[in-house]
Amino acid sequence: MKAVDLNSDMGEGFGPWTIGDGVDEAIMPLISSANIATGFHAGDPNIMRRTVELAIQHGVGIGAHPGFRDLVGFGRRHINAPATEQINDMLYQLGALREFARLNGVCLQHIKPHGALYMHLARDEQAAHEFVETLHRLDPELLLFCMDGSATWRAAQELGHPVVREFYADRDYDNSGSIVFIRRVKALDSQEVAAKVLRACREGKVRTVEGDDIDIAFDSICIHSDTPGALALVEATRAALDAAGIAIRAPR
Amino acid sequence: MKAVDLNSDMGEGFGPWTIGDGVDEAIMPLISSANIATGFHAGDPNIMRRTVELAIQHGVGIGAHPGFRDLVGFGRRHINAPATEQINDMLYQLGALREFARLNGVCLQHIKPHGALYMHLARDEQAAHEFVETLHRLDPELLLFCMDGSATWRAAQELGHPVVREFYADRDYDNSGSIVFIRRVKALDSQEVAAKVLRACREGKVRTVEGDDIDIAFDSICIHSDTPGALALVEATRAALDAAGIAIRAPR
Amino acid sequence: MKAVDLNSDMGEGFGPWTIGDGVDEAIMPLISSANIATGFHAGDPNIMRRTVELAIQHGVGIGAHPGFRDLVGFGRRHINAPATEQINDMLYQLGALREFARLNGVCLQHIKPHGALYMHLARDEQAAHEFVETLHRLDPELLLFCMDGSATWRAAQELGHPVVREFYADRDYDNSGSIVFIRRVKALDSQEVAAKVLRACREGKVRTVEGDDIDIAFDSICIHSDTPGALALVEATRAALDAAGIAIRAPR
Amino acid sequence: MKAVDLNSDMGEGFGPWTIGDGVDEAIMPLISSANIATGFHAGDPNIMRRTVELAIQHGVGIGAHPGFRDLVGFGRRHINAPATEQINDMLYQLGALREFARLNGVCLQHIKPHGALYMHLARDEQAAHEFVETLHRLDPELLLFCMDGSATWRAAQELGHPVVREFYADRDYDNSGSIVFIRRVKALDSQEVAAKVLRACREGKVRTVEGDDIDIAFDSICIHSDTPGALALVEATRAALDAAGIAIRAPR
Repeated sequence: MKAVDLNSDMGEGFGPWTIGDGVDEAIMPLISSANIATGFHAGDPNIMRRTVELAIQHGVGIGAHPGFRDLVGFGRRHINAPATEQINDMLYQLGALREFARLNGVCLQHIKPHGALYMHLARDEQAAHEFVETLHRLDPELLLFCMDGSATWRAAQELGHPVVREFYADRDYDNSGSIVFIRRVKALDSQEVAAKVLRACREGKVRTVEGDDIDIAFDSICIHSDTPGALALVEATRAALDAAGIAIRAPR
Repeated sequence: MKAVDLNSDMGEGFGPWTIGDGVDEAIMPLISSANIATGFHAGDPNIMRRTVELAIQHGVGIGAHPGFRDLVGFGRRHINAPATEQINDMLYQLGALREFARLNGVCLQHIKPHGALYMHLARDEQAAHEFVETLHRLDPELLLFCMDGSATWRAAQELGHPVVREFYADRDYDNSGSIVFIRRVKALDSQEVAAKVLRACREGKVRTVEGDDIDIAFDSICIHSDTPGALALVEATRAALDAAGIAIRAPR
Repeated sequence: MKAVDLNSDMGEGFGPWTIGDGVDEAIMPLISSANIATGFHAGDPNIMRRTVELAIQHGVGIGAHPGFRDLVGFGRRHINAPATEQINDMLYQLGALREFARLNGVCLQHIKPHGALYMHLARDEQAAHEFVETLHRLDPELLLFCMDGSATWRAAQELGHPVVREFYADRDYDNSGSIVFIRRVKALDSQEVAAKVLRACREGKVRTVEGDDIDIAFDSICIHSDTPGALALVEATRAALDAAGIAIRAPR
Repeated sequence: MKAVDLNSDMGEGFGPWTIGDGVDEAIMPLISSANIATGFHAGDPNIMRRTVELAIQHGVGIGAHPGFRDLVGFGRRHINAPATEQINDMLYQLGALREFARLNGVCLQHIKPHGALYMHLARDEQAAHEFVETLHRLDPELLLFCMDGSATWRAAQELGHPVVREFYADRDYDNSGSIVFIRRVKALDSQEVAAKVLRACREGKVRTVEGDDIDIAFDSICIHSDTPGALALVEATRAALDAAGIAIRAPR
């Protein structure tokens, strides 16, 4: 692997509130793709505009990060809605972010559903298919961030929609290749995270919670900005990749 | 006057609720421009998509109808926010609607702020100027619906942004040329409304609440869909214009 | 059966919107218990105050009708939240309604969860137990409306909390004794509904969707006010009960 | 002055977000009255319950801190609503908090409107009168926090409702005795703040932004928990009062 994308969730404050350590301005220069919250689980129009402009300033690819309509639950709670309603919610949020990109004369690079919506689409074949079908009709070039082997990924393969497969640096994997969902993430050791990423890049392997090694295929590394100590994780990961001669570069 | 636009607010339900008589499907075929609520004062993604598709089906020009973030007050209450925040809220909503137009392969025709936001921009020179300046940079072709002589209209004139001036069929005017704001509109006589519109089209005059005649200049007639008996008003107005040989036609 | 309670959901508008036929004022004089929406799925402080005062005027028992925080989905979509968070949401809404009762010098009679929350508590033993345990500590006299044989009912039996068991006049039952969930209810024949209620009162039996008769035990009849033609259903039911000499009376 | 109350806004997070330095747990043991956010401008049911329990643990008087329905603006933006609607919003929030007090077997000590609502009631005689009239009918013992000489204070005097007058340690005063409104407060010198409070307690004087001394009468000192460095301000103030032999004690 000569180059890899590094993505992070950005703009996840709301009104007077910031998330995690509030370090968007420190993280943005270090990543290549930003998933910008679009108002339903986090993010408001002022933050969205500011975050789009921050991404442009650092040459970072801009992506919409739509979630369930659930501010109080930060989009981490599943809402049992028909697929069409979920899709309409995502289109609404996608368009909202696209307008701030348009105002700044740039295009969106990607879309990445957030939290419980991401997990739902990763598991539900019918919902994933309906979503990707609509997305492909809407914008056949908009990269879809997803996990290798997920329902979202399969739907994109089938429909010919371009994807970017993610590796979750700050989450544990199990033997099925899924990430282990946790409600609150605790602080991680940045050197361990960097080593895990480096191994994944070089060997295509990750150690699971069961203690086995599994194969992992990806185009982008994800580090969540609301993980405590996120900045240190990004810095250590970037340093490890730099030292190994692996460039950090947006997928397009 | 050979032709005039006829606009109405559409898609102003939310979730399980419909507004007024719930007659969007009956009114849409009779109008030429639809102001579609964009989720902050009314409208949700499902309703927005449905309403965009209904407008397309009837060849009606599609406009974004952004309001203050105030569902419970239906955007009729002023919220004291800095102009930049108001503009960002409008951009967010504009983009959200534009995405549903894009999904259907059509473009937006216009933007018309709603309720207290419309009135605020009609009166506040600085806010109107900042809004129109941003809009013109964003989308120099997007028609701006406003009142002749309002601050919005003046800003558009100054900045060279295209406008459509409105005549309010279901509101009273005062001698200053402003419409008289009322919180709840009562049922109106449809023949009186039609006669008032016809006179305005032919003579360019309207009788004020003070009892005088004033000059009125406009390109579009607005009838609010949440006015009780709105459908009858639209039907009577359309019939009167038809009989007088004045075509109802979108501004573009 | 000499007397039975008749309950209906009241105050389910929001801001400018009313639900169903908007007939709270016509239905209130005909019922004995009102489940008043408390702002999360429907209802706002103005509507809540007005509805409490309308109930008092007609001597109707006042109940809190808390739902999931889901205006756009009218509380009919399950939100996957921990039991404690669901309970805190219910306490918040319960207190809000209680304040309007207090302002009018009356006490609350009951609590009845709404929609997806009602169904969740009817099925989830652990959530039902934690909810009833908290409710019993908070207000051991507040009647809990639930279905006979549901998890809610079992938790109340175990903890000694007073319940009112409901019969759903406008929903179908299946052979398990559960009501058949439907997203949108169509208009029903009022005479059929009245006959179904009368039979349930006299014989304690209801015909299921499978075509069998099952036993049904209840203290209150529920007719949803957002069922199309709700007023006619309530009127016909009341007339049938009157004719049969069965009084309509609040449970306490 | 032998004793004074020290109040602070508590529980002003929302969902995943905390405000300011997130130091409620450090500040609570140092104050005697807590103004707990009630969900419209900040605070959610989980935070409210936790904050009520934290206050009880430290013997701190519990007050409701209702604001405008404006999460994104943190209740700092005025919403132009009729007085009755503002009051109903406050009653709703008051009741919601009271329920968490009830669950813990304690009573509310006070109510203090938040942000733009506090300022509005301080200035608008009619709104203040209608609010205090309703409050007095509802709960004649519930202490009302307000500024000496404000419209709120005058209405309470006239209607015989008990008040606690506040001194704002972290805001500047002008010669009219009003506090100078600022959108974002910058970090303050904790020793200066402590000295200003001590002088106000001993001499009843404060230096204005114009450079004059004015008389100030109060029963409680307010330090906002979202002021940067709030904990240091509270600690320094408390230390100065301790050293001067002035006890910090809830008003009742």
